[in-house]
Amino acid sequence: MQVKLAKSYGFCFGVRRAIKLAENKPNGITLGPLIHNAKEINRLKDKFNVVVNENIQEIPKDAEVIIRTHGITKEDLQKLKEKTKNITDATCPFVTKPQEICEKMSNEGYGIIIFGDEKHPEVKGVMSYCKTIPLVVESLEALKKAKIPDKVALISQTTKNIELFLEIADFLIRHCSECRVFNTICNATFDNQESARNLAKEVDIMVIVGGKNSSNTKQLYNISKEYCEDCYLIEDFQELHREWFKGKKLCGVSAGASTPNWIINEVVETIQKY
Amino acid sequence: MQVKLAKSYGFCFGVRRAIKLAENKPNGITLGPLIHNAKEINRLKDKFNVVVNENIQEIPKDAEVIIRTHGITKEDLQKLKEKTKNITDATCPFVTKPQEICEKMSNEGYGIIIFGDEKHPEVKGVMSYCKTIPLVVESLEALKKAKIPDKVALISQTTKNIELFLEIADFLIRHCSECRVFNTICNATFDNQESARNLAKEVDIMVIVGGKNSSNTKQLYNISKEYCEDCYLIEDFQELHREWFKGKKLCGVSAGASTPNWIINEVVETIQKY
Repeated sequence: MQVKLAKSYGFCFGVRRAIKLAENKPNGITLGPLIHNAKEINRLKDKFNVVVNENIQEIPKDAEVIIRTHGITKEDLQKLKEKTKNITDATCPFVTKPQEICEKMSNEGYGIIIFGDEKHPEVKGVMSYCKTIPLVVESLEALKKAKIPDKVALISQTTKNIELFLEIADFLIRHCSECRVFNTICNATFDNQESARNLAKEVDIMVIVGGKNSSNTKQLYNISKEYCEDCYLIEDFQELHREWFKGKKLCGVSAGASTPNWIINEVVETIQKY
Repeated sequence: MQVKLAKSYGFCFGVRRAIKLAENKPNGITLGPLIHNAKEINRLKDKFNVVVNENIQEIPKDAEVIIRTHGITKEDLQKLKEKTKNITDATCPFVTKPQEICEKMSNEGYGIIIFGDEKHPEVKGVMSYCKTIPLVVESLEALKKAKIPDKVALISQTTKNIELFLEIADFLIRHCSECRVFNTICNATFDNQESARNLAKEVDIMVIVGGKNSSNTKQLYNISKEYCEDCYLIEDFQELHREWFKGKKLCGVSAGASTPNWIINEVVETIQKY
């Protein structure tokens, strides 16, 4: 089976930076998983004894703590600072930005609209910087049911789909006298999405490699599925099934921003052997 | 021939207000035509001796001057104030708004993008409030050729088409880190456009009544033409041709924001007689 990789895929700047920071803090604790990739988290544990703890109460006093790429809430940051001074902030700078915008715009009296998943840690973190209650929507349909202020600031979870973001922006522009749109979708996400879209158009089958709880990986899957019906989302090569590839000639591969190269390579090598 | 009027058409708030202001200043001079409707301008001249003068140099000292609905440039306002204290400002409040936004946003360092016709008096007026050189575009194609700043404020000529405005907004949101969108398309324009669109879908022929130099009238014509191929733009009943209506059953009628009811009524009555 011939394999073609997307022009842009896998590790983004924020993930690469976070892993480097974590590797430099052996025996450290990350508050929740550093990135959304269980296998890379296991590698950090095995090689650097960097462990995950979801519960801020359980963090020992003065512990070496690493803040995850998705950021944490303002309240948790406060609690953490009371426990320890040894904090390494691996929040992706592209996530820090919407946090700051949220704080500033809500202070200036704009109604805050966040396009994102309110259960995702990144969005929880961003929401916590809002001085008023933000409206968090995952679709235009949800927005249509909500009461919309006359002056709004719109931001996006960094890993969301630009087309859906624009649908939401358009609706707000129609209905508000001022709509401040901050395109906080990160470039890596955008590039990976564009590349997956282009690749999906020319292949017989698409395989997306990434964590099943990773937002940006899910977007890559949804976008590819639009253009290539035979599309699969897997976490590693062990989830591949030989029968998927029967009668196919060209397989496209892309990967989420938190998928390390060694996992992608294993997938590519396995498919090439079919 | 059966005639159906659009749900919303004709005189808007700003035009109605301007005419009332002019009627209250008999023997006054308007700097350029008060509204884009030659027949109504003639009526004001015949009944109230309100005359038009395009040239600010020719305005006599201390004359009674009425500023047109489309507004004038900041420089002309200054010159006018040096000539006379007797100024009645009939600028539509919906036009004053983009002037203020332009001034404020350019002061705050945003690149100004105006969706409109740079030769239209309203846009000339709005542009003059900009501290920097604004980018004025009439289409997405024109915008694509321009150099776009990273932080922009987008406004629209009040009489433009919302769908094209959103195309431009979407492009800017994709390419800028912040895009402040001010929906300055006036409600009357929006309502008239929506009503013309709905009516055009159900009739055999559409007649739009309004000045040929009127921006909002041209929009009504373009929108109607999309849904009803037999669409005509006329200034008054004398431009109607009986043969247009051969084999048609239902005629839709709409009119621009500067078209007085007496002109529309003459058109409707003429068509009904066919």
